[in-house]
Amino acid sequence: MSTTDYSQIPTPASCYVDFCLVPLGTNSVSVAREVAEVQKVLKASGLRYTLHSAGTTVEGSWDEVMKVVGQAHSVVHQRGAVRIQTSMRVGTRTDKSQTAEQKVKRVQDLLAKDEQSS
Amino acid sequence: MSTTDYSQIPTPASCYVDFCLVPLGTNSVSVAREVAEVQKVLKASGLRYTLHSAGTTVEGSWDEVMKVVGQAHSVVHQRGAVRIQTSMRVGTRTDKSQTAEQKVKRVQDLLAKDEQSS
Amino acid sequence: MSTTDYSQIPTPASCYVDFCLVPLGTNSVSVAREVAEVQKVLKASGLRYTLHSAGTTVEGSWDEVMKVVGQAHSVVHQRGAVRIQTSMRVGTRTDKSQTAEQKVKRVQDLLAKDEQSS
Amino acid sequence: MSTTDYSQIPTPASCYVDFCLVPLGTNSVSVAREVAEVQKVLKASGLRYTLHSAGTTVEGSWDEVMKVVGQAHSVVHQRGAVRIQTSMRVGTRTDKSQTAEQKVKRVQDLLAKDEQSS
Repeated sequence: MSTTDYSQIPTPASCYVDFCLVPLGTNSVSVAREVAEVQKVLKASGLRYTLHSAGTTVEGSWDEVMKVVGQAHSVVHQRGAVRIQTSMRVGTRTDKSQTAEQKVKRVQDLLAKDEQSS
Repeated sequence: MSTTDYSQIPTPASCYVDFCLVPLGTNSVSVAREVAEVQKVLKASGLRYTLHSAGTTVEGSWDEVMKVVGQAHSVVHQRGAVRIQTSMRVGTRTDKSQTAEQKVKRVQDLLAKDEQSS
Repeated sequence: MSTTDYSQIPTPASCYVDFCLVPLGTNSVSVAREVAEVQKVLKASGLRYTLHSAGTTVEGSWDEVMKVVGQAHSVVHQRGAVRIQTSMRVGTRTDKSQTAEQKVKRVQDLLAKDEQSS
Repeated sequence: MSTTDYSQIPTPASCYVDFCLVPLGTNSVSVAREVAEVQKVLKASGLRYTLHSAGTTVEGSWDEVMKVVGQAHSVVHQRGAVRIQTSMRVGTRTDKSQTAEQKVKRVQDLLAKDEQSS
């Protein structure tokens, strides 16, 4: 491994990111206005995304997804937030691609089967 | 503040926790089986919870919610996971209570209004 | 598993939690004052903890650790934060106990060995 | 805002990211080997970074930092992990730049002053 040129390593071709962005210094504890603005950035990106009550999940290539989350930070700064803290979960896998919807369905199917057999 | 008895401070009366539990050492990269088991623990708790593709959101008092997430760890250990790593977002507020559903609706309403006015 | 009494499942005997608490509605973007207050709560708990630039790691039983993080929320609310959002990483394992220090040392040893052999 | 060209919004010029990468499907619960490999990727990037017991903090421009974390995923996949789950905290601010070290020092100074005055 000593000869690996780390700078040439590519970023993953696909990933999912679930993020929750918290703006500080906006003189308001409501973040709905900022979350709405972020949804517009996501829509403009053309990537697949879903809003839920504790964050937003977005799917695409590593570079595309990270770019749009960065743009979300910039847009919220432009709206006056001096500081932003975001919590992210990032998943990549090499065995198969599975959409957000498929993941939820897989769990629901297992639960339905358990109920039938009990 | 020098006389505060920190051990007597109560934990918050309500909170929401969004968590994503990752078991290690289960000889499988699928976590659907474990997630399904965790849903059963949540159901038994009587707390309000929602599964989404990147985690599960649960609402209740701080102590109740943290207990059930701890029980989720124990159940997944019992199923063979030697190690578990969980990512959590925890929110508390003192101004008002707002359910997970209300939070999403608030953002959707703002987006709908923006579309009408543009 | 259908006869499991989930309410009787214990929480883990030990865990580590790394958390980063963000107060909203404090009219300031600096969180140093709040972080300092949280360190006092941790000190009073008697648990082992370490402050780093992106959070604080605390070790102990699940119930003890979660209690002290909840108390940290309460203390920061008492200081005026209307809303608090915390990001947490929680780890439990059944194979061995390993302190925070040991984890870092293990990685550093591997890196030192790699450098010698290259 | 209806005429904003969201695709042209830049990503932040600086940020810090604290991340904890968890590989699944490696037939081992130890992640020290993978963490060590990630440190090499970070070192090769030239960015400032610090390893702590619950993650690694890295500082730089948004694009640089996100690229290196993506490369870390790729390197760990190359070593055999079929699936990787990473938890990240990302912070950006427009008011001032503050290194990781300065943030810790600021809290320690506040605590020292409190002790003197009590």
